[in-house]
Amino acid sequence: MPDLRKDPVVGRWVIISTERSLRPTSFEPAPAPKSPNFCPFCPGHEDQTPHEVYARRADGSADSRGWEVRVVPNKFPALQIEGSLDRKGEGLYDKMNGVGAHEVVIETPDHRAELADLPAEHVAQVLIAYRERMVDLHRDRRFRYVLIFKNHGAQAGATLEHSHTQLIATPIIPRILQEELDGSRRYYELKERCVFCDIVAQETAENNGRRVVSTSERFVALEPFAPRFPFETWILPRRHDAAYQIVEDEAEIMDLAHMLKDVLMRLNRALDRPPYNFVIHTSPVSDGDLEYYHWHIEIMPKLTRVAGFEIGSGFYINPTPPEDAAPFLRGITLEG
Amino acid sequence: MPDLRKDPVVGRWVIISTERSLRPTSFEPAPAPKSPNFCPFCPGHEDQTPHEVYARRADGSADSRGWEVRVVPNKFPALQIEGSLDRKGEGLYDKMNGVGAHEVVIETPDHRAELADLPAEHVAQVLIAYRERMVDLHRDRRFRYVLIFKNHGAQAGATLEHSHTQLIATPIIPRILQEELDGSRRYYELKERCVFCDIVAQETAENNGRRVVSTSERFVALEPFAPRFPFETWILPRRHDAAYQIVEDEAEIMDLAHMLKDVLMRLNRALDRPPYNFVIHTSPVSDGDLEYYHWHIEIMPKLTRVAGFEIGSGFYINPTPPEDAAPFLRGITLEG
Repeated sequence: MPDLRKDPVVGRWVIISTERSLRPTSFEPAPAPKSPNFCPFCPGHEDQTPHEVYARRADGSADSRGWEVRVVPNKFPALQIEGSLDRKGEGLYDKMNGVGAHEVVIETPDHRAELADLPAEHVAQVLIAYRERMVDLHRDRRFRYVLIFKNHGAQAGATLEHSHTQLIATPIIPRILQEELDGSRRYYELKERCVFCDIVAQETAENNGRRVVSTSERFVALEPFAPRFPFETWILPRRHDAAYQIVEDEAEIMDLAHMLKDVLMRLNRALDRPPYNFVIHTSPVSDGDLEYYHWHIEIMPKLTRVAGFEIGSGFYINPTPPEDAAPFLRGITLEG
Repeated sequence: MPDLRKDPVVGRWVIISTERSLRPTSFEPAPAPKSPNFCPFCPGHEDQTPHEVYARRADGSADSRGWEVRVVPNKFPALQIEGSLDRKGEGLYDKMNGVGAHEVVIETPDHRAELADLPAEHVAQVLIAYRERMVDLHRDRRFRYVLIFKNHGAQAGATLEHSHTQLIATPIIPRILQEELDGSRRYYELKERCVFCDIVAQETAENNGRRVVSTSERFVALEPFAPRFPFETWILPRRHDAAYQIVEDEAEIMDLAHMLKDVLMRLNRALDRPPYNFVIHTSPVSDGDLEYYHWHIEIMPKLTRVAGFEIGSGFYINPTPPEDAAPFLRGITLEG
């Protein structure tokens, strides 16, 4: 019998339909090997991007070689940095100017490397770049949210193969984040506890652990109870913090770097280097340290062709129960 | 300057980012030509599917040749028809049994035909099959919603190429439908008018029409003000009706058949036969004729690789303004 399961935060019901995994289905192929064609993100091509807004460098000056991590404005931005919001109506409709920031975090100078393969110390530098840009963009009072996300592989929406993360600062709160904020506030009003703290407690309780993928001193990686996608994996801090950019201490960043690398490597080995997306879920700009919200990372391997149906109805059918995905990922050997 | 636009029903903000259409991007290829391999939906293979629950036949008996439109339970159902809901908790989580119906409307005996190419009279028979199955499933008191959707082409999630539509009856209301119901109810409480009626009125006003694709006596096809996808197209009845299955009179079904065929043909000619999805949005089971809701069809060509980012954040970036898509589709010549 399939299950219908409700996400405890946003209230989204998902069909967990094991029978469907029997049907003839097509999985997305792994991303093609990277080609050595011209790439604007490679060292020596710094003049092909807008001027850098952040870099971690061993040597060299701005917009030259010698960087380890580099952040530049997107050459084809979805939103424009200059201008005012200028909200207005058009009959019954509402609109405003597309003011915002759109930046690219170039994670490594090595065209062929991918995030999962970088040393943990380098992954930590990428995570610090996210934080520094987030802190900087939070100063702009026009913005309400800074969204950090990664598209890995063409099937997951990446248009350039050189490993990178994107950052979009927007004058509105993205829909699913708003739903999480609303849902977790309602839970807090009822229980006076953070729903994500409760999830971490329940999932890591001694007699449980069926959905846990990996744990460290400060983080837990798990398959959520009502996942939309096969092998959807969340990384949550054990300690309650509403905002990603609060992660300031070096040990915590290193722990997170190890955990992110651990999860991506498990997914790579388990699923033959799948295309994937991840999104950092954090509190809105200037909302401070909310007691009801809890930042986390949601990682979604792209294994099946998501139909417009799911997008059109908001209804997800997932053939892989999280209780099957978790032990599979736990059992992956990462050495060697 | 890009636009940020808000959908007037569900309140979803979308970035309309014309600049992005300049960037190097990959469009999904058109579906491959259909191959004559074994197909369980073809005439003569009626024993390869579960027993039919509806058919339009020129001759023959149930589960034999002679049908024009045939509806069968899905052989790999996402939900199971037998059983009770049996709601229960698991710590802080909620779940219930995956009870529901999952059926397939086989639109034509011709393996190579697609919906857009069938004669309008045949499309009308497909639309009648939708209605008859909807009416029948609405009698089952366990169900709250009957969702009708089509995946056309592998990139849009179709796993069998023989042209078909799917129907899923669920004990819950799919998320986006619930949001539409909530949003349109709020609008009604404020204005005492249906928001969809207001959209039709504003879009077809004499000094407007910029987003209109096609009109008929009873229907309007238009590009919505805040579309998530390039060339997203909605078909709305001019007359206020909450429920699809209320469409009973023959002339109205024929008008809708012509309109659906008209829009699909325009999309085929404009976009080189794209993969697409459509979803019928209608009122929930047993909610009757809601004064605030208005049934319609949302058609989404799958032109770009939708990133998990959009799904993960609920934030859509659309490079094609509806004011550009509409005149392009209006200008398509359908004759010849």
